[in-house]
Amino acid sequence: MNDEWKADLQTLFNPRSVALIGASESSSRSRAIISNMREFGYRGEIFPVHPKRDEAFGLRCYPRVTDIPEVVDAFIIAVPRDQVIVALEGCAEKSIPAGVIISAGFAEASPEGKVLQDRLTQIAETAKIRICGPNCYGIANIHERVALLLGTDVRHVQPGKIGLVFQSGGLLNLTLLAAWDRGWGVSHAISCGNEAVIHVAHYAEYLVRDSRTQVVGILTEGIKDPEKFLAVARSAAELEKPLIVLKIGKSEKGVKAAQAHTGTLVGSDTVYDAVFKQHGVVRVHDLDDFIETVELFAKRKRPRGGRLGFIAPSGAECGLIADIATDIGIDLPELPAKTVDRLKKVQSPFLSIRNPLNAPEQYTRKEKIFNACIAALLDADNLDIVGLRLPLPRMREDRDVVNRFVDLVQAGKKTEKLLIVFSRASVSLPEYWRQLLREHEIPFLLEYRKGFKALKSLLSYYRFIDRDRASCDAGVRVDVNLGKVKGLLQSFGRTLTERQSKQILAEYGIPIARETLATSAEEAVEIARRIGYPVVLKIESPEIAHKTEARAVEIGISNDAEVRADYGRIMENARAHNSAAQINGVLVQEMVRGAREVIIGMTQDSQWGPMIILGLGGILVEVLKDIATRVAPLTRFDVEEMMHELKGAKILEGFRGQPPADIAAVIDIVLRFSQLCLDLKADIAEIDINPLMICENGKGAKVVDCLMTRLLPESRHNIGP
Amino acid sequence: MNDEWKADLQTLFNPRSVALIGASESSSRSRAIISNMREFGYRGEIFPVHPKRDEAFGLRCYPRVTDIPEVVDAFIIAVPRDQVIVALEGCAEKSIPAGVIISAGFAEASPEGKVLQDRLTQIAETAKIRICGPNCYGIANIHERVALLLGTDVRHVQPGKIGLVFQSGGLLNLTLLAAWDRGWGVSHAISCGNEAVIHVAHYAEYLVRDSRTQVVGILTEGIKDPEKFLAVARSAAELEKPLIVLKIGKSEKGVKAAQAHTGTLVGSDTVYDAVFKQHGVVRVHDLDDFIETVELFAKRKRPRGGRLGFIAPSGAECGLIADIATDIGIDLPELPAKTVDRLKKVQSPFLSIRNPLNAPEQYTRKEKIFNACIAALLDADNLDIVGLRLPLPRMREDRDVVNRFVDLVQAGKKTEKLLIVFSRASVSLPEYWRQLLREHEIPFLLEYRKGFKALKSLLSYYRFIDRDRASCDAGVRVDVNLGKVKGLLQSFGRTLTERQSKQILAEYGIPIARETLATSAEEAVEIARRIGYPVVLKIESPEIAHKTEARAVEIGISNDAEVRADYGRIMENARAHNSAAQINGVLVQEMVRGAREVIIGMTQDSQWGPMIILGLGGILVEVLKDIATRVAPLTRFDVEEMMHELKGAKILEGFRGQPPADIAAVIDIVLRFSQLCLDLKADIAEIDINPLMICENGKGAKVVDCLMTRLLPESRHNIGP
Repeated sequence: MNDEWKADLQTLFNPRSVALIGASESSSRSRAIISNMREFGYRGEIFPVHPKRDEAFGLRCYPRVTDIPEVVDAFIIAVPRDQVIVALEGCAEKSIPAGVIISAGFAEASPEGKVLQDRLTQIAETAKIRICGPNCYGIANIHERVALLLGTDVRHVQPGKIGLVFQSGGLLNLTLLAAWDRGWGVSHAISCGNEAVIHVAHYAEYLVRDSRTQVVGILTEGIKDPEKFLAVARSAAELEKPLIVLKIGKSEKGVKAAQAHTGTLVGSDTVYDAVFKQHGVVRVHDLDDFIETVELFAKRKRPRGGRLGFIAPSGAECGLIADIATDIGIDLPELPAKTVDRLKKVQSPFLSIRNPLNAPEQYTRKEKIFNACIAALLDADNLDIVGLRLPLPRMREDRDVVNRFVDLVQAGKKTEKLLIVFSRASVSLPEYWRQLLREHEIPFLLEYRKGFKALKSLLSYYRFIDRDRASCDAGVRVDVNLGKVKGLLQSFGRTLTERQSKQILAEYGIPIARETLATSAEEAVEIARRIGYPVVLKIESPEIAHKTEARAVEIGISNDAEVRADYGRIMENARAHNSAAQINGVLVQEMVRGAREVIIGMTQDSQWGPMIILGLGGILVEVLKDIATRVAPLTRFDVEEMMHELKGAKILEGFRGQPPADIAAVIDIVLRFSQLCLDLKADIAEIDINPLMICENGKGAKVVDCLMTRLLPESRHNIGP
Repeated sequence: MNDEWKADLQTLFNPRSVALIGASESSSRSRAIISNMREFGYRGEIFPVHPKRDEAFGLRCYPRVTDIPEVVDAFIIAVPRDQVIVALEGCAEKSIPAGVIISAGFAEASPEGKVLQDRLTQIAETAKIRICGPNCYGIANIHERVALLLGTDVRHVQPGKIGLVFQSGGLLNLTLLAAWDRGWGVSHAISCGNEAVIHVAHYAEYLVRDSRTQVVGILTEGIKDPEKFLAVARSAAELEKPLIVLKIGKSEKGVKAAQAHTGTLVGSDTVYDAVFKQHGVVRVHDLDDFIETVELFAKRKRPRGGRLGFIAPSGAECGLIADIATDIGIDLPELPAKTVDRLKKVQSPFLSIRNPLNAPEQYTRKEKIFNACIAALLDADNLDIVGLRLPLPRMREDRDVVNRFVDLVQAGKKTEKLLIVFSRASVSLPEYWRQLLREHEIPFLLEYRKGFKALKSLLSYYRFIDRDRASCDAGVRVDVNLGKVKGLLQSFGRTLTERQSKQILAEYGIPIARETLATSAEEAVEIARRIGYPVVLKIESPEIAHKTEARAVEIGISNDAEVRADYGRIMENARAHNSAAQINGVLVQEMVRGAREVIIGMTQDSQWGPMIILGLGGILVEVLKDIATRVAPLTRFDVEEMMHELKGAKILEGFRGQPPADIAAVIDIVLRFSQLCLDLKADIAEIDINPLMICENGKGAKVVDCLMTRLLPESRHNIGP
């Protein structure tokens, strides 16, 4: 489906004329919309539409939209829900290419509402009408003074480079209030509501293409259009226009039936974390962090690295800053000897010269010393970022602080470093500060913890941007006879046996433990001798997926007699576990001696497709759920990042005298696995490789056990994209 | 040392007369101090002291403090550092019982400063002078209009029930600004500086005893007086006067030489977490959380439980609130059917009735519906706390919101529930709101994340208060022949052998694995037969503390031949490892079959004495440092809380079909261990029980290995109290 027209939102955001359908001076909605347009300074024509009035708001009123004699670029529908479809049909007849539907009561409200919304979507898709809403507050183009808006006051918002796309009108309002408070410039403010036609991804695409917009802030409960969103994220990264997303609803309990372990480990929100990380989308987790993060990204300079030098006005505050930086993971390196020497010459001998630097002189008015401290940190060659707390908030206007701020803006322009001003403030900023912030662009962050979290996001963003350029390598490319693999799969049942699962893995060159099926104890002995002791015996039955629970596995078998005894016991236990199970025999397997185990798994997300997990086997996965997740396909960098994310990563590197594990082998296997998951996303529902046994560096890794289930046609419609 | 006089701070906080030593109109310090006193309305007499002036600030000036003809209750010394001692000697001669030393340059600055400070302490201790400082801003008693203060403006601070003790004057200033912004009432504001005489614990003791003070907020870099502090914490808990502490400097790297593993696992800041948890002290980690937490505790009502119902004005915001509550661990239960039915009758059918409850009517001005929503939540029988976000911040005064707030204050008084008002605000509050907050006491929290963290602290506090009353049981009491134990210890070397360590444990009734020392292979075989196969062999040498690293341990030995072979190999490896080591022989030990291991350890903190850790053996401790820490002595509740704190707690409860471990046995052993650590705190430096092997429920636990080192007299001075 070609939906390129949906991102062409020129007429929606800059209409030369607007029809207000449902216009009436007795309606508070109408009044709010008209007064928003007029007070914001909309320069186009307004056509009120109402079946029973000749005039509204001092303008000629038309009974139907089709009665308007001139060309109409956009509409606002603000009629009761049950009249929306008729109104929209009129707009379609009049060939109006765009508009806002403010009315609520659609998919968000009830099943009937959902039916109406589907009808609305259908009309819009047919007539190619770009609709914002329904159930929304509308849109504003701040630069062009266009406001098709209910209930949001944009008069105080300055034009600038921040584009905001919010599912919620209420939270958009709060953010616009913050924009006013923090002196932000905004390009567009969009309350997108139910996204019946134009989705968050389309608005984002429009904003990323818009030359005035440099930062896009998004609040959403979920991305409707994964493929489109990923394409937008890719071009945003190319243009270095950050997408900052507050994705809410992460506590929703996703109920999911899964046979494989992977499915139960992956939460419904996890996929967003994965996708955002893989595409350089900046995720924040509440509105307060959203605001500091947008502030920093909007006024940023690209830092050369992540090393922060900080100047604060008291020793205790330096301690507090160091604590919070440690919590968040911001690097505060020791100052170089040269810088220390330079500072010793100017500073009081009672103060120690460290990072953070205690420089109380902005309180004691020793400007010269204080300026020398700033200059020394701006010159220090092991710092990339300099942070400085101004003595704010204050109760009274203080020209000294204002001048200091203006000086810093100038210094920030001259230096190669990223200069950030902090305020230790949950308390209020006075109006003259808002004025300053509007006039002078320098990041000004409130509260150290929120500020440092924003800085951490900035550093991750540039790590992504740089990495992305260094390599867009999709990893390994395996030559596979896909027809053969799919044929094999079709010959198997819904739940593959371990041996069948491994056959599929083997097609992708993933190394597996040597093994052969035995159908008698004597055959098992023969195979065991051929493989070499010790061996492992496991039941093979398509009905027994969890063999350990059925007590149908024995490991470390070291001689013929044990093989015979264990063969019998395993058969017995399996029959006791499930007397109806079809039993193929007992698998005799080499015992892989690796000190460390990982689990590699795949589960399908209904929106984003195959999600791949990597975790350390045993209790780390079982108890602590220590896993990293990404969406296929993976790059080599993705896999490396996944490994670093694991809390138990140290186990692979080797600790307590153990040699490092063969990490290169694991990376290769995960990349092959990623290709498998993508090639077979229409065929396989879930996979657990558990465990992959890893030998020490250079000696490889082997799959010891694997469980796959097929995606049968009847359930396939749940999976996308 | 009896220091009861140090908490008797009446004359410091309410002096009838004050001498200002170093008074001079040409000094900005003097001017600030005098103007603070006068503008704040100090009613007592002021005597300026200066060697060269007859008059200052319109008052008669005396050359020395001893020249003042009247009784002087308190002094403020604001002279250059090197004149402080002489000035203080004058105050001692004049028998002034209390005062503030503002001058800096003491222990915080240099070794010479430390010498001067020690001299200062000595003079004060001899003359029993209660000194605040040096290197401080001084003190204010807000109710009595007393301000002996430099640079802190307290004129705007209202009298009330919050006492503030801050090591840092700068951060105290910021907090007093917040007090103004949030309409707090403050009883005392104390900048305590270097604590040369009066410590944070003494101020806290004074404030806990003060009838006007109900909440004590403390900022400190470390508690100087552990025993006093614990005593204050105990009486504060008895009186339900919370101590809220921001302890900074937690990122300081504590360098510590330790032989036992426990020592390397415990960070220098960990002890504060432990002590605070054990004594109901509320710990916060930054100033912003400090402010919200004080706000909530100061205006709190005791909630019956922790179940929160929330009303927010949009669906998206409800999602955001649920996300943050999940992050923080706040329970938002489903609403009871009765409440849902009641709400369905009034609410729009387009809105779903859930918790958080979406009630946009405060925006749409449908007051009746909105009031019905609040009433329904206040009546819901499965809720203990009701939170509500007012439509704040706004840019303009809104009488509706003000009236709503006043109504809520009334509702909050009538209900048994704790009613909390939230504001989604990093932005500024207008002046009329400050007025409202001063007039009406109801908790008003800014930002959901900070607010929910404060609420979590409140709930933990009451869990502690209730638990504390339910049982002050110190746990197990073991009858021990302490003389015998100490005698044994003295007969051992600095590092005890495994067998010696276990001898000490056995005296406390801690179960250990059966074992005997063998000095030949044949003797080892005999012992192994007696114990029963399989057995474990380990080298015994006081010089080989880490036996595994020396490859001098073999487990799972199942017959005589293996014993003989392993005996020889272990002796060989041990000699290769350390040819000079004294080798006692090989320990033959029963092989304890337990599925789960824990580590129990002790390390001495130089201030707080023996710290006990509990962790799950193996990688959870090794890689993830998953341990819980407390200071001896432990109560049964402490041990239970320690177990819950472990990330891997589920392992003990049993998972994947394993039976639960014998947790009761572990608790008993840890309590015995606690007594041992306390009894022998002057004798033992560190202990690792690693592992304690736990059998399934009812089958006990046994120590398999243990390492102890003695605290020899020459290093004992590092340990307290």
